[in-house]
Amino acid sequence: MAKYVYFFEAGKAEGSSSMRALLGGKGCDLAEMTNLGIPVPPGFTITTEACVEYFRRDKRHPDGLWEEVLTHLKRLESTLERSLGDAERPLLVSVRSGARVSMPGMMDTVLNLGLTDETVLGLARRTKNDRFAWDCYRRFITMFGDVVLGLERAAFEGLLDEAKARANAKSDAEVPGHALRDLVDRYKALVQEKTGRVFPQDPLEQLRLAIDAVFNSWNNPRAATYRRIHGIPHEWGTAVTVMAMVFGNLGDASGTGVAFTRDPGTGERRFFGEFLVNAQGEDVVAGTRTPEPITALRQRAPSVYDDLVAIKDRLEHHYRDMQDIEFTVQEGTLFLLQTRSGKRTARAAVRIAVEMVREGLIDRETALLRVEPHRLQELLHWIFDPTDKARAAGKGHLLAKGLPAGPGAAVGRVVFEADRAVEWGKEGQKVILVRPETSPEDVAGMWAAEGVLTARGGLTSHAAVVARGMGKCCIVGAGEVFVDEERRAFQAGRILIREGDVIALDGHTGEIFSDTITRVPPPISEELRVLLKWADETRTLGVRANADTPQDARKARENGAEGIGLVRTEHMFFQADRIPIVREMIMATDTLARRKAAERLLPFQREDFIGIFRAMDGFPVTVRLLDPPLHEFLPHYTDLLEEHTRLDALGINPERMKELEEIMAKVRALQEFNPMLGHRGCRLGITFPEIYEMQVRAIMEAACAVSREGIRVEPEIMIPLTGTLGEMKLTHEMTRTVADAVLAETNMSVKYLIGTMIEVPRAALVADQIAQDAEFFSFGTNDLTQMTFGYSRDDVAKFLPFYLERGILPADPFSVLDLEGVGELVKIGIERGRKTRPDLKVGICGEHGGEPGSVEFCHRVRMTYVSCSPFMIPIARLAGAQARIKAERQREVTNA
Amino acid sequence: MAKYVYFFEAGKAEGSSSMRALLGGKGCDLAEMTNLGIPVPPGFTITTEACVEYFRRDKRHPDGLWEEVLTHLKRLESTLERSLGDAERPLLVSVRSGARVSMPGMMDTVLNLGLTDETVLGLARRTKNDRFAWDCYRRFITMFGDVVLGLERAAFEGLLDEAKARANAKSDAEVPGHALRDLVDRYKALVQEKTGRVFPQDPLEQLRLAIDAVFNSWNNPRAATYRRIHGIPHEWGTAVTVMAMVFGNLGDASGTGVAFTRDPGTGERRFFGEFLVNAQGEDVVAGTRTPEPITALRQRAPSVYDDLVAIKDRLEHHYRDMQDIEFTVQEGTLFLLQTRSGKRTARAAVRIAVEMVREGLIDRETALLRVEPHRLQELLHWIFDPTDKARAAGKGHLLAKGLPAGPGAAVGRVVFEADRAVEWGKEGQKVILVRPETSPEDVAGMWAAEGVLTARGGLTSHAAVVARGMGKCCIVGAGEVFVDEERRAFQAGRILIREGDVIALDGHTGEIFSDTITRVPPPISEELRVLLKWADETRTLGVRANADTPQDARKARENGAEGIGLVRTEHMFFQADRIPIVREMIMATDTLARRKAAERLLPFQREDFIGIFRAMDGFPVTVRLLDPPLHEFLPHYTDLLEEHTRLDALGINPERMKELEEIMAKVRALQEFNPMLGHRGCRLGITFPEIYEMQVRAIMEAACAVSREGIRVEPEIMIPLTGTLGEMKLTHEMTRTVADAVLAETNMSVKYLIGTMIEVPRAALVADQIAQDAEFFSFGTNDLTQMTFGYSRDDVAKFLPFYLERGILPADPFSVLDLEGVGELVKIGIERGRKTRPDLKVGICGEHGGEPGSVEFCHRVRMTYVSCSPFMIPIARLAGAQARIKAERQREVTNA
Repeated sequence: MAKYVYFFEAGKAEGSSSMRALLGGKGCDLAEMTNLGIPVPPGFTITTEACVEYFRRDKRHPDGLWEEVLTHLKRLESTLERSLGDAERPLLVSVRSGARVSMPGMMDTVLNLGLTDETVLGLARRTKNDRFAWDCYRRFITMFGDVVLGLERAAFEGLLDEAKARANAKSDAEVPGHALRDLVDRYKALVQEKTGRVFPQDPLEQLRLAIDAVFNSWNNPRAATYRRIHGIPHEWGTAVTVMAMVFGNLGDASGTGVAFTRDPGTGERRFFGEFLVNAQGEDVVAGTRTPEPITALRQRAPSVYDDLVAIKDRLEHHYRDMQDIEFTVQEGTLFLLQTRSGKRTARAAVRIAVEMVREGLIDRETALLRVEPHRLQELLHWIFDPTDKARAAGKGHLLAKGLPAGPGAAVGRVVFEADRAVEWGKEGQKVILVRPETSPEDVAGMWAAEGVLTARGGLTSHAAVVARGMGKCCIVGAGEVFVDEERRAFQAGRILIREGDVIALDGHTGEIFSDTITRVPPPISEELRVLLKWADETRTLGVRANADTPQDARKARENGAEGIGLVRTEHMFFQADRIPIVREMIMATDTLARRKAAERLLPFQREDFIGIFRAMDGFPVTVRLLDPPLHEFLPHYTDLLEEHTRLDALGINPERMKELEEIMAKVRALQEFNPMLGHRGCRLGITFPEIYEMQVRAIMEAACAVSREGIRVEPEIMIPLTGTLGEMKLTHEMTRTVADAVLAETNMSVKYLIGTMIEVPRAALVADQIAQDAEFFSFGTNDLTQMTFGYSRDDVAKFLPFYLERGILPADPFSVLDLEGVGELVKIGIERGRKTRPDLKVGICGEHGGEPGSVEFCHRVRMTYVSCSPFMIPIARLAGAQARIKAERQREVTNA
Repeated sequence: MAKYVYFFEAGKAEGSSSMRALLGGKGCDLAEMTNLGIPVPPGFTITTEACVEYFRRDKRHPDGLWEEVLTHLKRLESTLERSLGDAERPLLVSVRSGARVSMPGMMDTVLNLGLTDETVLGLARRTKNDRFAWDCYRRFITMFGDVVLGLERAAFEGLLDEAKARANAKSDAEVPGHALRDLVDRYKALVQEKTGRVFPQDPLEQLRLAIDAVFNSWNNPRAATYRRIHGIPHEWGTAVTVMAMVFGNLGDASGTGVAFTRDPGTGERRFFGEFLVNAQGEDVVAGTRTPEPITALRQRAPSVYDDLVAIKDRLEHHYRDMQDIEFTVQEGTLFLLQTRSGKRTARAAVRIAVEMVREGLIDRETALLRVEPHRLQELLHWIFDPTDKARAAGKGHLLAKGLPAGPGAAVGRVVFEADRAVEWGKEGQKVILVRPETSPEDVAGMWAAEGVLTARGGLTSHAAVVARGMGKCCIVGAGEVFVDEERRAFQAGRILIREGDVIALDGHTGEIFSDTITRVPPPISEELRVLLKWADETRTLGVRANADTPQDARKARENGAEGIGLVRTEHMFFQADRIPIVREMIMATDTLARRKAAERLLPFQREDFIGIFRAMDGFPVTVRLLDPPLHEFLPHYTDLLEEHTRLDALGINPERMKELEEIMAKVRALQEFNPMLGHRGCRLGITFPEIYEMQVRAIMEAACAVSREGIRVEPEIMIPLTGTLGEMKLTHEMTRTVADAVLAETNMSVKYLIGTMIEVPRAALVADQIAQDAEFFSFGTNDLTQMTFGYSRDDVAKFLPFYLERGILPADPFSVLDLEGVGELVKIGIERGRKTRPDLKVGICGEHGGEPGSVEFCHRVRMTYVSCSPFMIPIARLAGAQARIKAERQREVTNA
């Protein structure tokens, strides 16, 4: 028969910190502290296995569990020379939950268990404190009623408020003992009324019910949701710790507190915490009294303070991590009630990790694992000054809340059109672009703006994706914001914001303010630089950036990119001096005219590439040939129709009317039912070869030009949307022909590669064929996710939020790579590709390249590099290092 | 060293019919006939290996080839006691191509080789026929000039026409000998002028050049295209046969002919062929003289005829297949020049196969393999009477040509609106629905029409797919047809067809006529019924139909379906009495209103299912819950806008304006960028559960109702577009709950299954998970192809035709299942699904279910059944039988 209960008392525990899975975090750390000789009230822990078995048996105890509990209870009673239910020397215990990983506040706890109408009198006698005893009893009934009997806490609180009113007491503490005694009677009557039974007077019944209630709290909806969000398996179960009560509310020589071994906000190495005299733990949480700083304890009780400092040093040294501890002082005696690894800000996490290495507490690998990569984002973007933001909120300037789609803090004047954003931007004004939603036409405006706000769209909408790529502050899906483009204004609640008004966007929280707020730069610390250096020395996975301009490329290098994994050439097409030529190219009715327009674009493209190549001296640059469908470069049909209707009504400007009609006809001809699955990518390059030929020529002429300047350039020409060997063969051949022609003309020798995006499911399935002609693969996991799921990124908001809420999907697959489906295709693609070409260079350039879990996957499937937005580079560097450490540890475990 | 040359003469050949790969079809059949003692002019065949080696060596002969040719030439000369180039006894030979499989007319042949200025005189002397000799020479120069020297045939023909004019001759035969002699001089001068060299006078040089030219003809563009279309490997190469000439043009006791051992049109067992007195083979082909029927030979030369009949019987018996033979009679002596399996109509193929089994010539398996399944289509749809169609074409009634999208022959009055098609149809009129393109709104009109014509769209457009499913005659993508909906007319060339005019559509050819044409029913023969019975006894793969109505279901059973693999419930939504309720359901702003509308639809749906279940008594019926996005059920936005604008201008009917505005708002809200990847399928069923709940209830209530009538019903409820286990779990649970509730209410016990479409790539990849909750899979290969390729079926016409033309894709993947990509996913899906649930029922219900190659694949990957349009059922039955036979033969080969 399994052992279900582990005892701990006076320096000796059956458990230890290695038994976290069995005893839960709380149980094993109490055992560990006991073994270390740290004062902990004695008690015992019921294992998670007992909980799992309890649920397996449909909420019946496993055989022998209750007997084991009784045995250990006896042992506890004999240690303390008190007994549960003993009228003279009553034992009181707490019953606490504790899962394998901390789930703060998600499960239930019962304090002061063992109080009955009889024992409450014994407690009063022994403590010589009548009021204390009745206060304990009424707290117990409340907690037991709530947790075990399922009664509404509010009902008890209502009765307490009445008692306070009757006693004319301002706080709970002012309610006199007799009133509390009276209150207990009312509480018991309430229990009887609601449950039809008297409040249990048998402490063993109390104990059994409380243990079951804590087991059951593992499956309460709040805990289940928390587990789903944090990826904690539902099968783990919780442990239950039963321990002797100690009281911080026995007078001024008593008290309770929480503390951190270092500053959890900054990471500074100083003892940090709070302390409340004459109080129980829940009073600290309730916040009705203001606690004193921990240092105050030094004055109040110097020896207790010294003990506490010695203990916290010992714990930090023992666990080799910053600890969050709870303690109680009962009439001058110190007890530790909990220790656990402390939550901290990203800034603190970095500082603590680096300093602990310097202190010799941990090694570099451990330090690298101590910082969650995605939290670095907090350190990389501008933020609002918290005080000034509180001021703005306090004054009612919080307009609405949307989805935080791009981090940062932006302040600027509202504009409703991309063109105006560009115009005002040129005049040196800071603007916020506000749109119902964005389209590729808005990209220039988004660039020019400080921040972007859209009323519609989800975290993967056009606005969100483009803004994140730009590292731009962005809020999307602000449902309370109604944009009236015609009036150049938006309504949020009862407030109307007009063009030119100043607003502020908090891209970290999604909050929108109708006032300016002071911004502060992100505190990039020396410690972060050190940590990232260690990460670079550790990781084997390359980190590149997605960058479309020389500015992007420079930013990427500053952030540590080792090349560019994706230059999207179409973004260059949208610039004001180019779009007319692009449109001319599209409107061309024959090859010759199309070729002529393409030739006029060539110098622009070449200059772009020259700038990027210069910025990336010594590193490879992957340039993707034109990808989107052509209609994205033409005006919206409704806009054209509107202008046409207007001119028609006025009977003016027949030339423009004719021109409009031509464009409208073209837009109609290019219209597609599903543009995502339409005439784009290499399908375009194959049917209109003039465009790709021009782009290849521009890339290679640029490469030759910078090479002549002495810059080391490694162009990698990438074909988008390849799905068949036929496409790859044809585009490879075309690219090779043009590229070699340029080299021959310029008499230069520049090494270049020709490769392809893998973003169509079929490409992954026939990767062995495609690798015959592709020298590298780059997984375009945005499109691959769209096609593998059959989700249009632009339409997914209609059901994805519902799917996430209902747990049909664990995460948005456009943010977190879907390892089971899309990841499976990626694995198949890499395996088959390398079967044909063992040295195939493989990268990823979707949104996922900067998502830590996805980066770990990329390392595991032996990708050469990940490529992500310049602003995500530090995250990818750290995630890459962690991926390697984890994989090696995994390998060691497997080999051992 | 390889043996490159195989000799045949006088009853003894080195080759045989087992050496088809090495000697080509012609070479091996000549050897086989020689061995059978059938009179064949002697000669030798150069192997395909020599050809392959020739190309491998960059068009140089392999070592020893020419020496081998000379050795065998000597042997031929000594047999015939004539020599190449001998002035007195000149040997003339033909040099013929012959690949492993017949590629009629694709490669080249040279006749009369060996003629020179000297030997032509010897030939004249020996045959005592001056004119004959010069005619042979001028034919030789023409052919050699064309095939070997690459000169234009037209130049020679021009000179011939001049000679005819000079001689005042009406036909070639009337040109006298001296004029032909003169013509030869002009021909030689032409060769010298064009090539700069004299016409080769060395017969060995002629032979060598001719052999090389035949080798080279393997790679001429026409042959390469033919191979690509027919899937013949480019690596095979051609054999070359050099054989002694025999002459059918030596006078009235000579002649030449082609014949079939049975009637290739009907399959009737009668000797069938044509014969031309005093002619060479090319005269038969040229068609300048009208040949006599083969029976005429009986009068002209009874013993020759008897010999020929004996030989044809022998050949058919030997090859156990209908033969297509070529023969020449030279001065009363019969020679066979070729025998091969004869091409035949589908009707003949079926009859010959069945009769040969009855005659004991072949077994049933062989008979089943003798008929190409897709050709059965010719036997299953109405056709135009060929004579009457020729009349119409002759009178200039052929308007235009489009893509033949749905087989059959349709005649009716033109309408341009679906509603009008329904209206006129109800009045008993036969109508043809003509649209620029169709949408789901047109489905009712398509049903009501005899045929459908669209100006736009490809073979996989909405019109094409729906029409094929209905077995409806349909022509799409008729580029010359300009539909003017406003004027209710269409223009084709200079002809304007107005509403109400009669047109005729030939769905087999894509031809559109401006006149009525007599139709004839398809001759469904007793033989076809027998063959299909054998097919049913042979195949293990089930065959079901896609059918949405009781009529469809009945048609499916008539055609031999063993169940329904796909009932598309949305088609029922479009009927006139339902669409208003459907729209009400969609317009509902809350769950209650939506539920109410759904409840009103319930009786309709239940009646539909009752009808289908009754028709399918004893067979399973798979019903797919609602799949398309909701906006498909609402009117087009532009139509609404138009009505709104009109009413607004007139200032009337404000209630209707308000209603229109509401619908317009809804349409806007439902608008999607990529509806294919949007809010549809189970995504809809999960977010609006009322719809699926109603449908499940309707299915189960119908099942209970018919079950009570004694009908055996096996409903299989199918969830569309599942991509994740979460979706499957939720929809399974919902379905189970509603279905069991219905059974409980009705107190019935009906076995039903819950399964899913596999049409999203991810579903195939995580099929092991999905099979936890799915009791069957049905591969929706239409959508699976769309998502695996990233091709929108509705937009693919922009590049797919180009891709097919350029050979980037071997076939339209929406017609022929892409085995490498989509097929790979299907395989993965079945393997993984059966890992979880070994007895998983697996079917296919895409367009591919009736495509023979795809059916073979489905058998190979161990699907349970295929499901296709009711009209394709016979094809699938035969294809299923062939698949099993082929797979078993393959297994025998592998095991041997």
